[in-house]
Amino acid sequence: MEHLDEQEREQYWEKIQDALFNRQIDQFRAEFLELHPYDQAKIFETQSEQVRQQIYSYLASEEIADVMENIDIEDIEPFFTEMTTAFAANVLAEMSTDDAVDILNQLDKNKVASYLTIMEKDAAEEIKQLLHYEEKTAGSIMTTEFVVLNANQTINEAMKHLRKEAPDAETIYYTYVIDNQKRLVGVLSLRDLIIAEGDWLISDVMSERVVSVPVGEDQEDIAQMMRDYDFLALPVVDFQDHLLGIITVDDIMDVMQEEASDDYSKLAGISDVDSPDDSAIASAKKRLPWLIILLFLGMLTASLIGRFEETLGQKPILAIFIPLIGGMAGNTGTQALAVAVRGIATGEFERQGKWKMIMREAGTGLVTGFCCGLLITLVLYIWYGDIYLGMLVGFSIMATLIVATIAGSLIPIMMHRLNIDPAVASGPFITTINDIISVLIYFGMATAFMNLLIHG
Amino acid sequence: MEHLDEQEREQYWEKIQDALFNRQIDQFRAEFLELHPYDQAKIFETQSEQVRQQIYSYLASEEIADVMENIDIEDIEPFFTEMTTAFAANVLAEMSTDDAVDILNQLDKNKVASYLTIMEKDAAEEIKQLLHYEEKTAGSIMTTEFVVLNANQTINEAMKHLRKEAPDAETIYYTYVIDNQKRLVGVLSLRDLIIAEGDWLISDVMSERVVSVPVGEDQEDIAQMMRDYDFLALPVVDFQDHLLGIITVDDIMDVMQEEASDDYSKLAGISDVDSPDDSAIASAKKRLPWLIILLFLGMLTASLIGRFEETLGQKPILAIFIPLIGGMAGNTGTQALAVAVRGIATGEFERQGKWKMIMREAGTGLVTGFCCGLLITLVLYIWYGDIYLGMLVGFSIMATLIVATIAGSLIPIMMHRLNIDPAVASGPFITTINDIISVLIYFGMATAFMNLLIHG
Repeated sequence: MEHLDEQEREQYWEKIQDALFNRQIDQFRAEFLELHPYDQAKIFETQSEQVRQQIYSYLASEEIADVMENIDIEDIEPFFTEMTTAFAANVLAEMSTDDAVDILNQLDKNKVASYLTIMEKDAAEEIKQLLHYEEKTAGSIMTTEFVVLNANQTINEAMKHLRKEAPDAETIYYTYVIDNQKRLVGVLSLRDLIIAEGDWLISDVMSERVVSVPVGEDQEDIAQMMRDYDFLALPVVDFQDHLLGIITVDDIMDVMQEEASDDYSKLAGISDVDSPDDSAIASAKKRLPWLIILLFLGMLTASLIGRFEETLGQKPILAIFIPLIGGMAGNTGTQALAVAVRGIATGEFERQGKWKMIMREAGTGLVTGFCCGLLITLVLYIWYGDIYLGMLVGFSIMATLIVATIAGSLIPIMMHRLNIDPAVASGPFITTINDIISVLIYFGMATAFMNLLIHG
Repeated sequence: MEHLDEQEREQYWEKIQDALFNRQIDQFRAEFLELHPYDQAKIFETQSEQVRQQIYSYLASEEIADVMENIDIEDIEPFFTEMTTAFAANVLAEMSTDDAVDILNQLDKNKVASYLTIMEKDAAEEIKQLLHYEEKTAGSIMTTEFVVLNANQTINEAMKHLRKEAPDAETIYYTYVIDNQKRLVGVLSLRDLIIAEGDWLISDVMSERVVSVPVGEDQEDIAQMMRDYDFLALPVVDFQDHLLGIITVDDIMDVMQEEASDDYSKLAGISDVDSPDDSAIASAKKRLPWLIILLFLGMLTASLIGRFEETLGQKPILAIFIPLIGGMAGNTGTQALAVAVRGIATGEFERQGKWKMIMREAGTGLVTGFCCGLLITLVLYIWYGDIYLGMLVGFSIMATLIVATIAGSLIPIMMHRLNIDPAVASGPFITTINDIISVLIYFGMATAFMNLLIHG
């Protein structure tokens, strides 16, 4: 079977629809449940509320839970709203705690309270605890459905325990070993378990060098760690090393996707590039805030140029190079920004130290500035036969490139220092700042050397 | 144990260094091999060649293979060059075939040939086959170290087989079932295996709905599939459904990272944002190609404005709004570009269809253009008391925003049609194109309505 595309899902759906229409519950269940929950979710989402109500009544709450785990978190609210409170509470209780918490964070506070009141006590307690952790930390993406072993168990006892727990656990491929104080003391992969002899003790086989993350750790750092170490799961501990939960690789793939899309959106100056809107108005709403800020910054640039009206009046040809110089400043600034933002995100920046990074950017600005400046001087000399104009534009480009490159890396580094996400210094913002810098340099130099420009 | 940071690695290294210095091979091995291979690699990389040579002689080729698998592919070449040919061939033979192939793709062709000649025949054959697959396809990232089962085996027989294969296999958490023609017929997770009774047949327990990918499939699509379906491994098949290899989730995390960084780099107009250079020259070399292209495009803009010299002469104040209008065009174009590139990458664009997407962008341009245009008209009226100048700039911004938004989405869609990676239409490129468009609109309108502008 291939990954189902839109068309194949249609075909499956037609078969399933017949069963629904004829109210053949067994046939519907047989066809529908054979699909991967992701495909179930994709099909489920496109149905009318009437059909969805029929599906709720034909499936058990744990089967609906599988479907709900595969729906995009932004789209989930209407489905829970249309379920009865009791049914919704059951579905949430059957879900992985981490997914249930993600959903509850999207719903109305009063609804959440009523779900938690109805829900079975243990499940409600676990969810309540997870709801306290801050977004984008280990606590908010971990699940509490994990398997723990005791160091004094034999392999046979452990396997027996594992078989019992397997259906509910988020993963059984890593199991964690705790002591009597519930502190994390070891880790054991299922691979180690099945290779070991049945009468060996867990303590003989487990690895005591277990890598764990504190519950407040940033999700992006955790993703990087999992990628570096090729882990399938990571245990989450509190400050006393008590095992609180585990983070599995499937959730980390979602984190990676989310963080990458976030950085990309910010470089483009748009709040969320990855949730396509159906209407132009909704999409304009997302882009307008940035555009209006930039409009005012642009008016600042305009008023700055306005101060050089006299210079412009003496030599009107100066105007035609404004977009060239501003554009080059914007481009080189965005390049430097992107390198700095990624360097901070991947930890490369910590490794090299900020001064090395800034010095390198200054050097890069010098080299690119010298090359581009020399080139434009020559071209303008050949084109207009005016060496002083050529030199003015050339020197302006060189100075602009140096300053803009340094600004592009310095601004995100400063923001990182102030604990502001450096990606907030989005592409358009840096571009506009550098526009202003370039205008000041260009007209400043033109005003200073006006004699040469006019009288040659 | 935490994820080791730079400082902790130093501390571990000091202990290990003593052992190396005193030539205590057993102590060195005990300390070094206790670390995770990723940390081994990070420590190994920072040593002098002399120390590395000592490490080669103290470790077995399979232990060096673990270290090499954790070194960044761009940095690996010198290490293989300094090993003896025979040792290097042994190390490559001990690595996962997918990692060995990645490394061989970085090395000199003659070297590769000599390694393959010396290498054990089976390993060399497997590697040679993988070397043929195109970069960034399933074939290039899959490994051939997987466990296959036969449908007629009992669970007990299968577990016995698995225990034997476990140490060499890339993953044992999914096993694939093949028929007599080596065609893929089923899949079985280790979870299913350990829950099942020992005398059941594999064919009773396996799932026949096995999701597989063709060997030529694009790695980005595979990453998306694995994320959607939460798989830990995916089988790769040829056109007759023969099982050729498997792709594991750890490699997919690297693919996600690579693709995200690729898109990000292109939006910033820089060839590779994620390999930090140590020298300013190296980093300038990467950025100059784009900057020089943009320099010439910028000169085109300048010469276009030059054609409106007469208009500028009649109303010099027009010059001060050039960066404002060009900047708005660039920003809105980058926003539309980012949405289109992501829409194409995530398949959202296929789902919605290109016309719906373009129409929505046009609508978005209309709304943002109307709002920004009205705003600037009012501000300029209040500021300069010149309603005609305000209306000129306002209408220009409105028209520019509409055209720039459409261009920002149309260009990547056209490139996608022509089978060019749409991300190549990088941010700076779109920005500069839109600069040109904005200049034409602004001065075109100014020239047409010059009478009104001068006489009011």
